[in-house]
Amino acid sequence: MKVNERINKLRELMSSRGIDAYIVDNADHHSSEYVNPYFKERTYMSSFDGSNGTLLITKDEAFLWTDGRYFLQAELDLKDTEIKLMKMGVEVFPSLDEYIKTNLKGKTIGFDGECFSSSFGEEISEYLTIKSDEDLVGLIFENRGKIKFSEIWPLSIEYSGESHKSKLERVRKEIKENNATSLILTSLDDIAWFYNLRGGDVPITPVFLSFAYISLDKEVLFLNTKSLNSGAKKALKEDNVELNEYMSFSSFLKELKDETILVSQNKLSYLYLKLIKENNKVIDKDNPTLNMKAIKNSVEIKNNREIHEYDGLAVFRFMKYLKEAYRDNVKLSEFPMAEKVLEYRKMCDKFYEVSFETIASWNSNGAIVHYEPTKESSMAVEGSGFFLLDSGGQYMGGTTDITRTMMLGDISQEMKHHYTMVLKGLISVSSSKFIKGTTGRNIDMLSREIFWKEGLDYRHGTGHGIGYMLNVHEGPQAIRYQNVANRYDMTEFKPGMVTSIEPGIYLSGKYGIRLENEILCKEDMKTEWGDFYSFETLTICPFDLEPVLIDEVTEDERKWLNDYHKMVYDKLSKLVNKEELETLKEFTRQI
Amino acid sequence: MKVNERINKLRELMSSRGIDAYIVDNADHHSSEYVNPYFKERTYMSSFDGSNGTLLITKDEAFLWTDGRYFLQAELDLKDTEIKLMKMGVEVFPSLDEYIKTNLKGKTIGFDGECFSSSFGEEISEYLTIKSDEDLVGLIFENRGKIKFSEIWPLSIEYSGESHKSKLERVRKEIKENNATSLILTSLDDIAWFYNLRGGDVPITPVFLSFAYISLDKEVLFLNTKSLNSGAKKALKEDNVELNEYMSFSSFLKELKDETILVSQNKLSYLYLKLIKENNKVIDKDNPTLNMKAIKNSVEIKNNREIHEYDGLAVFRFMKYLKEAYRDNVKLSEFPMAEKVLEYRKMCDKFYEVSFETIASWNSNGAIVHYEPTKESSMAVEGSGFFLLDSGGQYMGGTTDITRTMMLGDISQEMKHHYTMVLKGLISVSSSKFIKGTTGRNIDMLSREIFWKEGLDYRHGTGHGIGYMLNVHEGPQAIRYQNVANRYDMTEFKPGMVTSIEPGIYLSGKYGIRLENEILCKEDMKTEWGDFYSFETLTICPFDLEPVLIDEVTEDERKWLNDYHKMVYDKLSKLVNKEELETLKEFTRQI
Repeated sequence: MKVNERINKLRELMSSRGIDAYIVDNADHHSSEYVNPYFKERTYMSSFDGSNGTLLITKDEAFLWTDGRYFLQAELDLKDTEIKLMKMGVEVFPSLDEYIKTNLKGKTIGFDGECFSSSFGEEISEYLTIKSDEDLVGLIFENRGKIKFSEIWPLSIEYSGESHKSKLERVRKEIKENNATSLILTSLDDIAWFYNLRGGDVPITPVFLSFAYISLDKEVLFLNTKSLNSGAKKALKEDNVELNEYMSFSSFLKELKDETILVSQNKLSYLYLKLIKENNKVIDKDNPTLNMKAIKNSVEIKNNREIHEYDGLAVFRFMKYLKEAYRDNVKLSEFPMAEKVLEYRKMCDKFYEVSFETIASWNSNGAIVHYEPTKESSMAVEGSGFFLLDSGGQYMGGTTDITRTMMLGDISQEMKHHYTMVLKGLISVSSSKFIKGTTGRNIDMLSREIFWKEGLDYRHGTGHGIGYMLNVHEGPQAIRYQNVANRYDMTEFKPGMVTSIEPGIYLSGKYGIRLENEILCKEDMKTEWGDFYSFETLTICPFDLEPVLIDEVTEDERKWLNDYHKMVYDKLSKLVNKEELETLKEFTRQI
Repeated sequence: MKVNERINKLRELMSSRGIDAYIVDNADHHSSEYVNPYFKERTYMSSFDGSNGTLLITKDEAFLWTDGRYFLQAELDLKDTEIKLMKMGVEVFPSLDEYIKTNLKGKTIGFDGECFSSSFGEEISEYLTIKSDEDLVGLIFENRGKIKFSEIWPLSIEYSGESHKSKLERVRKEIKENNATSLILTSLDDIAWFYNLRGGDVPITPVFLSFAYISLDKEVLFLNTKSLNSGAKKALKEDNVELNEYMSFSSFLKELKDETILVSQNKLSYLYLKLIKENNKVIDKDNPTLNMKAIKNSVEIKNNREIHEYDGLAVFRFMKYLKEAYRDNVKLSEFPMAEKVLEYRKMCDKFYEVSFETIASWNSNGAIVHYEPTKESSMAVEGSGFFLLDSGGQYMGGTTDITRTMMLGDISQEMKHHYTMVLKGLISVSSSKFIKGTTGRNIDMLSREIFWKEGLDYRHGTGHGIGYMLNVHEGPQAIRYQNVANRYDMTEFKPGMVTSIEPGIYLSGKYGIRLENEILCKEDMKTEWGDFYSFETLTICPFDLEPVLIDEVTEDERKWLNDYHKMVYDKLSKLVNKEELETLKEFTRQI
């Protein structure tokens, strides 16, 4: 069945139920960024698999909304379908909300109420009638199968740095301070962090499908109990956590009454909110675990620093391989390069999986921000240009995210100028100092201005928070100049927060350049004017120095770069063999 | 009667009315920044005259809240009173709201309901009982007299650039788009802009005490009709504006019914909102005139550019005078210097009054951000150091705001370093380019980072919007990194907006440095990445080059400074005499 046939089949179901428009997304019951394959209904209905995209199907039309990172990819994916691309953030295109308000006022809209957030549902319910009790795509989804659950295992105190008991105390304090009786957690990383458990139900993030109810005197955890290994079972028993099956969460909600419940509505599904609201009061607020989890404790920071040496080593080895293979005229292609860096990461025994799909792109593919090569579509590395590698790992001890762009062969002065600009953007944020109270909304400008001065821009944030053995994209902090719905950028930076810094340049049809480090916010100085913070760079890996135009970097930037490369050399030189040491010396040379 | 006696007298009135706490501010019925002397109740009750300050008097205690600009000044003013200073933005001090919530919950609070905004009243009404129908300070205010009204005169199209009729059309469009039936304006600058009228009821801002009601088919303007000159009367008659007395506004509100009224609650007094709400629906939104007024039209910009030449000329003449008089050992003091610059401004026949009280401060007084010298307290210019002059004028053709700091005698390297830093902050914002959608929240970092890197800061915004023949502080745009209640900083910069850029360094007991220009946002370039804007500097006046440490400025900064001084020379050289020309050449020399 092709995409257009699937859409027509859905239209038959819509028509028989009096539904004028139906919304489909790749959404699980937890507002997760990455989802178990079971939940990929939008990919099935449109063939577009990007991380952000919402499909709206009406009687006669079909639209897909996605953001600037995916415009090129979506155009390719939607080519043979009737679906029209709606470019988010581009003025001529109405947003999904605007489209609904203008074109569907008073009509009936359908979606799977377990898969859409309550804040979305509540907002549009002012304009139209909602039918949210049926998963229509589920009825036509061929060969869908069942959810596959993976093992759930415990994190010892050497890895978590804080017991569940201590976290529970902090959370209960917040419940009380909000005059609530309980808290319901539905976001998987919050639950995994809170219980010091990890799993594998969602690709590339070590979480497990679950819900949690925490009151002042009891806790109930909903999960696939068969998946718990003996250590996890023991830990939960010691903590007196009541266990319940994953599928029984809805019926539990139906029984709840006379409570005042803290929930985070943009994480909570529409259907669950409806059930809770029937007999309870709701306080809509960010989960208290969101801020606690973002501030890494000293054990997490120590482990993080350690695994970053191994992660940087893997990428350094990849850079060495790529430069040498190119020099020796080895036939190279994108997809095998993604496998190559995975091979190097696997050499560290603390590594267990990638933290997101590897972006390994050559020249024009690098301009597609979230391009991922596959075995079937993998461009050969021919001629000269830029090779961009954005990759990361899940380790016992942390989650990483790093991007390096390497020049191969002869490139133009303009390309070198662009590379130098991206490096300057990264250094600008990395070397900044800022007063307590500063947000990512402020800091973004330090990188962005370097690009804007020349009429350039990158259509993604300058940085995002990163989890610890959890999601590679984690709130609440981010570095972004504009408001993006349901994303964070007004959060104050606090010591202990780990964030990426990743400016870039993308020239459609030509090349993409991105450089990305992880940075840890830490205390810097206290003066009569306030408390000041700065960043420690966690990523330990050389930048390709070949395309750097030394005339274009300031004295301060040159010093930052030389200090950074000295630090990289000091740390990695202990881990490499003799032959690698020579390359490391060259890659980290002072300029 | 001394301050403490006045407070006790007020306590007697409070007690007889069952009021536990009473709030006093220098507030008129229009939420104006500057007020007719008649409304200065807080100054009367506390002797603190700063532009931001709220007094709270309870049975046993008295507190004054003000912000960082005024900490030093307030400490001096409150020394001989029982009033405790509550430093806004300093963590150990609760905010006024927090104090009310913690200490006055369930009690009865009093204030003059015509003088406090409805957003304030509505917020605190959740916690306590409000008595807002009596002006208690008015009952004990000795020698208060009556409001003195001034002449109201019309602005011809050569000055306004847009007829009232055209503005009315745009406003009515917004009323319709909000599904409202009418708009009520209470902010004086909005009314003056909308009717192309000016007056003199408030010191240093050419506005007149008034209210306006605009529906889809009629307009009623409430003012002291005797103050209208013949031109103003004629213009209003031609536009069919119904006139009513200023004092009859409340009774008009009592008659209104079944309307849906647009109001800006943080501008609208608590009492008026109460009256409106009795029989009408209210939509709380920024006045549509706020954004229209902020974007200056081509006539306003042309006039603005012209008067800035005369304004810069006056400050240049002052700088010349100061440097020469100091060299010649003339006895100098702060207050006569404020008079001196006024004398130079008066040489331009388009000038009619200052746009705010002149700040002329020597060394340690410069560290008090909003210090104003008076005849009685004026420090002598002795020894060497920095003289700071922050001044501005109201002209036929615009409102100005400019700060220059001048070095006199020998100063230390550190002082020169600080001066250079302030100049770099100003250049950083002045030379920035930014994409459509950028706000002052983003831009602030460009200046601030230069200070934060060294653990320094300035406790005021980097810039504020400026009116046209109106308020020297005008919303909605501002350059500020943090949220300040009821102020604006999340507004996108748009071509036509005029803003100040004024970083500074203030070392208590030592000296203050501030440099301030006005900048006009304009279109810069359109690229595939978006529309980019930049700033044109409107202020035409040299910076003192003596304290600039050339080693500390970058090549780009040097170029900006030289280009700026060349432009200043080109414009002012046509206006100066032969002797002045020599000094102008020296002051604008290339470095």
